[in-house]
Amino acid sequence: MFQMSGARWAAAAKRHALLAKGLRVTIGWDGDILDKALQTADMYLGSTMPRDNLDVRAPRLKWLQMTGAGADYLMPLDWLPKRMVLTNNSGAQAIKAKDSVAMALLMLNARLPAVLTNQRKKRWEQLYSPPIAGKTAVVIGFGRLGQAAGRAAKGLGLNVISVTRTGQRARTADLAVRTAQIDKVLPKADFVIVTAPLTKETRGLLNRDRLDLMKPSAGLVNIARAPIMDHDALCAKLENGSISGAILDVHDPEPLPADSGLWSTPNLIVLPHITCDDPDYISALLDFWFQNFARFKKGKPLKNRVDRALGY
Amino acid sequence: MFQMSGARWAAAAKRHALLAKGLRVTIGWDGDILDKALQTADMYLGSTMPRDNLDVRAPRLKWLQMTGAGADYLMPLDWLPKRMVLTNNSGAQAIKAKDSVAMALLMLNARLPAVLTNQRKKRWEQLYSPPIAGKTAVVIGFGRLGQAAGRAAKGLGLNVISVTRTGQRARTADLAVRTAQIDKVLPKADFVIVTAPLTKETRGLLNRDRLDLMKPSAGLVNIARAPIMDHDALCAKLENGSISGAILDVHDPEPLPADSGLWSTPNLIVLPHITCDDPDYISALLDFWFQNFARFKKGKPLKNRVDRALGY
Repeated sequence: MFQMSGARWAAAAKRHALLAKGLRVTIGWDGDILDKALQTADMYLGSTMPRDNLDVRAPRLKWLQMTGAGADYLMPLDWLPKRMVLTNNSGAQAIKAKDSVAMALLMLNARLPAVLTNQRKKRWEQLYSPPIAGKTAVVIGFGRLGQAAGRAAKGLGLNVISVTRTGQRARTADLAVRTAQIDKVLPKADFVIVTAPLTKETRGLLNRDRLDLMKPSAGLVNIARAPIMDHDALCAKLENGSISGAILDVHDPEPLPADSGLWSTPNLIVLPHITCDDPDYISALLDFWFQNFARFKKGKPLKNRVDRALGY
Repeated sequence: MFQMSGARWAAAAKRHALLAKGLRVTIGWDGDILDKALQTADMYLGSTMPRDNLDVRAPRLKWLQMTGAGADYLMPLDWLPKRMVLTNNSGAQAIKAKDSVAMALLMLNARLPAVLTNQRKKRWEQLYSPPIAGKTAVVIGFGRLGQAAGRAAKGLGLNVISVTRTGQRARTADLAVRTAQIDKVLPKADFVIVTAPLTKETRGLLNRDRLDLMKPSAGLVNIARAPIMDHDALCAKLENGSISGAILDVHDPEPLPADSGLWSTPNLIVLPHITCDDPDYISALLDFWFQNFARFKKGKPLKNRVDRALGY
């Protein structure tokens, strides 16, 4: 569904006709024509990266574009020759992510995790909830995904607190704190939304102790990466009712195995990594690529460069 | 949870001190003090109505206020003496209903009914969906609940078509048609939202033939009354995949019995009649009652009068 195709490329090239002129494009799958193409390629776009011995295999290569947003699986970037730049697709997911976060917040507020657990048990229990406006969302990570979450939350009338490495305030956050201050804001959250990239700093950030700082009435949604949170500790809290509900779109591993306990954990909604993905996102990716290609041709710094030290 | 209490009345009376002055209030449950109170009451407020022989039992009574919105269970109003007025609580549900409809639309768009059916089967299947903006919602009934649904849909960037008895266009509807024209607009719907009161005209409105007019990719939500729709026909369509998904908040009977097939129908989300109810709605009801009481004292026509012929 998310694969590049000749037709998708042709449609994008038509939208960006001037830029596309003179480009020679090779499309392949599963590495079938990879090595031959790399011998002459200036640019590479793919969902997997050719990491072995790249300096020799791709003597002209200068720019590699990921189809996804999270570069965690490519870290550390010691395989990437210094003359090359890696760019991610952060931002393409923002529109869909805003829809998904609005949905998740409304579902958590309406106690849908508990209501749907009751449906599995064929149990009628009228769990009422007040309107959502005026509640507080803590958004962990406030890049493009986090800011989309922030816009969703503000659109529902919530107070938004962002938690980021720098603590710098971006639009749509009412309050911004540094990651080091996360323990001060977690107790204020009616909802915690995880949108951060997976890095050395965020791995295990929402551990058992931090989850215990949340109100028992609070809900939690993770649309970023599973290892940012201790899922075992979360499940224990869901089982003993010390947190209201959770929606997890990301898992470790994926696909989530059929024998995972998550599927039947009470008050937990399991989504199969779908919240940020628009089936038409290859078109949006190609539009972004062409805009970046215009910068590339002029020798300007590329947008969405993955920082070798920060990992996003 | 939704019962009147002395404390709730006292709090409301404090908010409306001038109006409350001189009012003598009696609060009872399960009819314990009903007949004694009715002998002298000018006004009545309750979730059930004293329908038998009311003319004789309540010689001074002029105004009966319902705590709910739908008067269908009180129809026909032949029990209501001509000198009395019945008012409903339509409108109090609007804020909560807007949240709930936004949630339902986003869930249907994200194919959550199928995704949650997969969770019950512990099955990982990445069902992707595009952003919701630009799709079309058909709202059946466009009173205060329907208009709240319309605001939710417009807020998500949808096109809104309202279907009402008169066909008159209200704000937030892009197109308005009469109920007689419903067959023309159902095929346009990505989402159908049922918010109409249950009346002679709406009972059975969404029958098998009309449900068959919907696109196979469309979703459906009923937050009004169950008998407006043929639930058996809906379930058959959900079973054979000729409709994408449905969210039913209203059932017949309620509570939905544990042996009902609805609980485990694929691509169906069962909510236990919670979408329009704010746990603090008695306060809102009392505020509305005091505003109406000000009109009552001045002899002005009351708001939210239930029409004897129309039934809402």
